[in-house]
Amino acid sequence: MLKIRAHYDVIIVGSGPSAISSALKCAEHGMKVLCVDNFPPSSNKLSRGKFSHAPSEEIATLLHSAKLYSELKINSRFHGIVAENISLNLSQFVERKNSIFTQIEKEIYKSFNTAEIDFFNASAKLIASNAVMLSYSTAEPSKLVNAGNIILATESIPISIQCAPVDYQSIYDSSTAFNLTEIPQRIAILGAGVIGLEIACIWNHLGAEVILLDAQESFLSLVDHQISREAYKVFCAQGLELRLGTRVVSTKIINKKVHIEYQDSDGVHVIRVDKLIVASGRKPYSEHLASPEANLLIDQNQFIFVNDNCRTNLPNVYAIGDLTMLGPMLPQKGIAEGIYVADQIAGIQSSVVNYETIPNVIYTDPEIAWVGQTEQSLKAKGGAIAIGTAHLGYSAINKSSNYTQGLVKVISCPKSDTIKGIHIFGNNASDLVAEGVLAMEFSSTTEDLAKTSHSHPSPSEAFRYACQYINWK
Amino acid sequence: MLKIRAHYDVIIVGSGPSAISSALKCAEHGMKVLCVDNFPPSSNKLSRGKFSHAPSEEIATLLHSAKLYSELKINSRFHGIVAENISLNLSQFVERKNSIFTQIEKEIYKSFNTAEIDFFNASAKLIASNAVMLSYSTAEPSKLVNAGNIILATESIPISIQCAPVDYQSIYDSSTAFNLTEIPQRIAILGAGVIGLEIACIWNHLGAEVILLDAQESFLSLVDHQISREAYKVFCAQGLELRLGTRVVSTKIINKKVHIEYQDSDGVHVIRVDKLIVASGRKPYSEHLASPEANLLIDQNQFIFVNDNCRTNLPNVYAIGDLTMLGPMLPQKGIAEGIYVADQIAGIQSSVVNYETIPNVIYTDPEIAWVGQTEQSLKAKGGAIAIGTAHLGYSAINKSSNYTQGLVKVISCPKSDTIKGIHIFGNNASDLVAEGVLAMEFSSTTEDLAKTSHSHPSPSEAFRYACQYINWK
Repeated sequence: MLKIRAHYDVIIVGSGPSAISSALKCAEHGMKVLCVDNFPPSSNKLSRGKFSHAPSEEIATLLHSAKLYSELKINSRFHGIVAENISLNLSQFVERKNSIFTQIEKEIYKSFNTAEIDFFNASAKLIASNAVMLSYSTAEPSKLVNAGNIILATESIPISIQCAPVDYQSIYDSSTAFNLTEIPQRIAILGAGVIGLEIACIWNHLGAEVILLDAQESFLSLVDHQISREAYKVFCAQGLELRLGTRVVSTKIINKKVHIEYQDSDGVHVIRVDKLIVASGRKPYSEHLASPEANLLIDQNQFIFVNDNCRTNLPNVYAIGDLTMLGPMLPQKGIAEGIYVADQIAGIQSSVVNYETIPNVIYTDPEIAWVGQTEQSLKAKGGAIAIGTAHLGYSAINKSSNYTQGLVKVISCPKSDTIKGIHIFGNNASDLVAEGVLAMEFSSTTEDLAKTSHSHPSPSEAFRYACQYINWK
Repeated sequence: MLKIRAHYDVIIVGSGPSAISSALKCAEHGMKVLCVDNFPPSSNKLSRGKFSHAPSEEIATLLHSAKLYSELKINSRFHGIVAENISLNLSQFVERKNSIFTQIEKEIYKSFNTAEIDFFNASAKLIASNAVMLSYSTAEPSKLVNAGNIILATESIPISIQCAPVDYQSIYDSSTAFNLTEIPQRIAILGAGVIGLEIACIWNHLGAEVILLDAQESFLSLVDHQISREAYKVFCAQGLELRLGTRVVSTKIINKKVHIEYQDSDGVHVIRVDKLIVASGRKPYSEHLASPEANLLIDQNQFIFVNDNCRTNLPNVYAIGDLTMLGPMLPQKGIAEGIYVADQIAGIQSSVVNYETIPNVIYTDPEIAWVGQTEQSLKAKGGAIAIGTAHLGYSAINKSSNYTQGLVKVISCPKSDTIKGIHIFGNNASDLVAEGVLAMEFSSTTEDLAKTSHSHPSPSEAFRYACQYINWK
């Protein structure tokens, strides 16, 4: 029978990647753990928690199916594959993703059970540095639970914008961008950042006409500029319509169509689309997470204040993942912090999370992935740099899958030859970047990487070429 | 106009991956290079050379197309993709591979031109430690060319067997295994080693019934046994018929069918197939490479004798790649040796090739890849080992592409925690192994790898899990 204890060694609020990694590590260290999903209670009695997924998990899964469909429709004939009447059943396309997450959830439940982690569906509110108030049933009063340590890990939610209110009929947010019953002819996406672009690539592969609107003048400005320039060319050639430097003024629903009024340097324009997806970024999900008397420090953008050890201003209360401004909003960051905090609580000496070597991935097609610093950030700091680039299209494997574009870019310090950043635009960049991360973890030089054997043929050979022909300027 | 000089700094005999890497590196060091493909002269005048490909290059390219076809035929409906009458045009399937190699050749020609490497079609014979005799035209006499250094890099050719003579109509070798006009109903492959298995996977994906015959009792005995057991199960489930411990006695062609008589522990059997492919391994292509008076040391299996620096018994004559018994017959080995020998000739101090960290790849589906030592070889040496394994099927990305099997296995020394071997069976293992190679290059511990951030979700997370939950037994 499900039962909440009055005291735990650790209470973890949240059920995403950061919470899961932290819960498992705490249990491994022998602590009694309570994990609360922080979803609104869904039944009248205490019930099992539900896991939440990082947006990248859903996107990566859908992208695989979308790439397969697009490859069949556009490229299969080059391989000698003949097929007729190719079409897509959208509900099955989405259902497949859901069934995969059902499987994954089962596997996580199993490991939680093995680790004897209590995991419940409840809303949680921090009321003191050692106490959380849980609401888990509409029929019963909230329950106070004490803990030696509390880890806040509720991750983030989509930012809503006033002029485009989500109605789940014509206007959707990034979390519901695929909850449609049929492929729309024309979609607009508000925001050409990471998530907007990922959603755009999938809808484009499924055959929709996609228009991206973004207030920024430059495309993917956080990415190394050489990579974002290359990506811009490729995505435009794929048919994405990128309207940068545009500010949406208003939206109206007329006859089931969304009329979007936006402004750019030329004046005011109106476009009419079937669906609008708002993808203007994400914010920490910290609202209602702490009662005022708990005195948890939260900034105006709802980020929880933490020091370099993920400690909040309250003793024994930690915050990890998307909730803090330490490092980027990426599941792998939260996973690393979850493990690090568990070690700290267990009193195990372990090095702090190295935010410099956390890989960034954008699950577009081709993918964008990088680790370390960009050319522009290194130049802004004024130091000399050496750059080596290699085309991924040289590889027989990439040629075979029609990925004739794409590149690997390695940036190093000319004095020490130490690698400062590795940037990839290409198929499977999310896999390839793993080698780059390890190279930076070991403070590898470009010579080290150039002398490392790489399977032939494999796209990873591009690392060797980029390092071998680095330009010492 | 094409013209051969009387003297070069370096003559390279061969035109495969080892020769290409060596030629480009020698040119980079400022040497004047002649590269001779060593194919029989094909015209009456001096003509441009032709590149030769490693079998893995052709296989990897064909495999990609075959996987796409098989995924469409078997799995596309799970993704919601609807298509009718899916079929394969075999000649276009093969033509695509050929056109990719034409593109690759153009790119290599371009880099040879830029590097001012002379590259001709000619048969070459070493006649002394500083001289090669070239036959490049049936109309003109052979030409003697001198060089300060000579690099032999003619790689390997398929081994033929007496009881199954290749006729290119019913019986083929591994180099011509796809030169067919239509997909045969039933194929036998003689040899279930690396190449036999790679060919089998492709034909199986294209819809042929495939029977593999091998004299060995154990399956893929050079691979880590846990991996080969797992692979055996998966390949059998895919429909490959593996008949191990069988010795082919004779073959006969009757009414265009190949009748194969073979013996196993139960006695003598006969099977009838449409085509037979002989894939009984490869041997160094060293025949006619040196005249007897050159006194080049070659062993009875046609391997050229070399020391640890790829030097033959003759001064300034080197042999690299498949020609020698240094390390495995893999293009990445020859590429590394090609660069190392070029450095030696240029008088540049560089560390010898580390054969322990050369990745091995078998381009099956799923792929098999590894670096370092196997469990059985480490146990045979008597030392204690720790083993960590993680299922690749946990990843949402692998689940999405129906790769629910597969694993990563990390073996380390329990005392030092240093990684001794990494073994992968799974989709994209050839990409994933790159991280393992770098880990071994840096003598990484499992703790180092467990603490390295991996993108979530990505199959490479399996490295982290395998290291995190390593079993110190």
